[in-house]
Amino acid sequence: MDDSLYMKKTIELALKAKGRTSPNPMVGALVVKDEKVIASGYHKKAGTPHAEVIALNKAASSARGATLYVNLEPCCHIEKRTPPCTKAIIESRIKRVVVGTLDPNPKVSGKGIDELRHSGIRVDVGVMEEEAKRLNMAFIKYITQSMPFVIMKVAQSLDGKIATASGESRWITGEKSRLMAHRLRNEVDAVMVGIGTVLKDDPALTTRIPDGRDPYRVIVDSSLRIPLSAKALIEPSKVIIAVTERAPQDKRDVLKEMGVDIIILKHEDGEVPLKSLMRELAKREILTLMIEGGSSINASALREGIVDKAMFFISSKIIGGKHSIASVGGIGPETLRDVVTLSDLKIRRIAEDVLIEGYTPFFDHWFYHR
Amino acid sequence: MDDSLYMKKTIELALKAKGRTSPNPMVGALVVKDEKVIASGYHKKAGTPHAEVIALNKAASSARGATLYVNLEPCCHIEKRTPPCTKAIIESRIKRVVVGTLDPNPKVSGKGIDELRHSGIRVDVGVMEEEAKRLNMAFIKYITQSMPFVIMKVAQSLDGKIATASGESRWITGEKSRLMAHRLRNEVDAVMVGIGTVLKDDPALTTRIPDGRDPYRVIVDSSLRIPLSAKALIEPSKVIIAVTERAPQDKRDVLKEMGVDIIILKHEDGEVPLKSLMRELAKREILTLMIEGGSSINASALREGIVDKAMFFISSKIIGGKHSIASVGGIGPETLRDVVTLSDLKIRRIAEDVLIEGYTPFFDHWFYHR
Repeated sequence: MDDSLYMKKTIELALKAKGRTSPNPMVGALVVKDEKVIASGYHKKAGTPHAEVIALNKAASSARGATLYVNLEPCCHIEKRTPPCTKAIIESRIKRVVVGTLDPNPKVSGKGIDELRHSGIRVDVGVMEEEAKRLNMAFIKYITQSMPFVIMKVAQSLDGKIATASGESRWITGEKSRLMAHRLRNEVDAVMVGIGTVLKDDPALTTRIPDGRDPYRVIVDSSLRIPLSAKALIEPSKVIIAVTERAPQDKRDVLKEMGVDIIILKHEDGEVPLKSLMRELAKREILTLMIEGGSSINASALREGIVDKAMFFISSKIIGGKHSIASVGGIGPETLRDVVTLSDLKIRRIAEDVLIEGYTPFFDHWFYHR
Repeated sequence: MDDSLYMKKTIELALKAKGRTSPNPMVGALVVKDEKVIASGYHKKAGTPHAEVIALNKAASSARGATLYVNLEPCCHIEKRTPPCTKAIIESRIKRVVVGTLDPNPKVSGKGIDELRHSGIRVDVGVMEEEAKRLNMAFIKYITQSMPFVIMKVAQSLDGKIATASGESRWITGEKSRLMAHRLRNEVDAVMVGIGTVLKDDPALTTRIPDGRDPYRVIVDSSLRIPLSAKALIEPSKVIIAVTERAPQDKRDVLKEMGVDIIILKHEDGEVPLKSLMRELAKREILTLMIEGGSSINASALREGIVDKAMFFISSKIIGGKHSIASVGGIGPETLRDVVTLSDLKIRRIAEDVLIEGYTPFFDHWFYHR
């Protein structure tokens, strides 16, 4: 096996903790000796040991002379919950370290590698680099932009509607698409909806799959119209409501009393400014956020340039109707030059539906610096 | 090779004349002897020889004792431009005839087969029957429903828009999708648009590919608002305008004088009744029609149940905007129970776009009688 195959396994290991490591990255590690994997590990959760340490502990004295594969540069800094991995690697007498990609934090990037090399360890960097970077794109955005990685999820008819004129929206897409949506909720730190969706559909926004973990629920509600009986409020400690100064103080107090986190932002044209909200969410260690509608919040999110990835679940229904609800409403661009074009498109059939997903130019901008 | 493989070849041959045979079906024929194809033929155009006759003429005396493969039951009736094929088959001393599907015309269906059997020829019917029926679905609809087979073609953004609020629509989908649209125009007898599309985009509706044949242009224009300078009028003898009684008489006369075919229909809620229009088009031997927009004609066509197949070319652009133009507008259904759900979905990537196509319940109803 060559380096890239071991690195692929490392990434697969790292992915086991998808949705569980924030604010840390997903990391997997393999100890390989004489073409055999003698130990492995992955980072399970912030505050628990790093992947390298787990793998090295398992390998114990056999780590001597072996190669360590790790998708992200081992940490060297000490102002954190766990001791630096570089120290553990050096002490284990590992001979060679193969790294997927450097630490995205400019303050430490390359320093872990330097430390290892200074100790006489051979270090190869950049094996499966694109995959290693894509694995931790949310972490990279968090570190470099202080913003969460944002997915816009849409479930629409073939002709782009999310509800009939009377507001009926259950269900446009099929069971399998909805199951996938729950799996996505299990993997993101938070989901976000506009107050319109809460008032119309009263969604619980929980993860209804076995062993699912509920994400934080972020509700954009500029004047705090949410009913106290809303299903989304059932577990108040996992609810964040973004309001503007116009939100009535007494209702804010009641919700805070319930345990809800109220974020007050200065309004822009009467609306909650989503970019500022994203920064606030990043401060709360939310690294991945999925927007689940509706029509106007999708439009605002695109207009403000906070969306990195769009996932359109498209059913085989044609709804039509000038007064039906479009998946993306709001104020549209006048010219086609100003629309958002997705790149790196993936198309998948999901039972009777189709999933089209791609990345926005906003993503390309910070991820590829283009 | 077995029967179904020969039948497949027969269907492939028949398809060579796609878009050229109306009001006749597409038919291919193979003469096979000792596992060898000794002659073949296909019907090229109404008024020219039938596939069986072409193949038998080529085979000449070697047809004796051979097997004839033909996707559609050979004709036996005589009230038509060409002599019946059954006569030619019997005279050729063919030993066995393999037929894809029966003639859809209840008046003659099975009679050709009977005639052959009475002459001592072994006849096997129903080889690759589904494919043979699908090949000539337009012909079957024409014969059994006296209506053309209708394709609704949409070119939209990922979120279901066909133009920005300012009306900009060029281009939402990519070059390859547009090339495919021209290939489709080459294969259908007519294309149809609403007057809104003519006024907004002034499309020529011609087939811009090498050796392309322009389809008839059908314009739905209840009060005859079309400008005489419209590009769609460039070749007036290939233009059909559907109006209501409200269309001004003088303008009707001018257009008739130019050579345009004006169909006057009794309005329904001020609109041209599309079902009646389809019957008129069938009378003019239009077997296949492609609707190319816009928003309201698509909605009306679906509501009136004239659409058999929908083809959605979907780009990777997200347009958004409450005032952008939706691919299917008009009056939408109140409940999801009344929407049109496509079946037999096919999904294809067309360069940077996606093509999702499927059949409507209206199609299923007459084609499968369900």
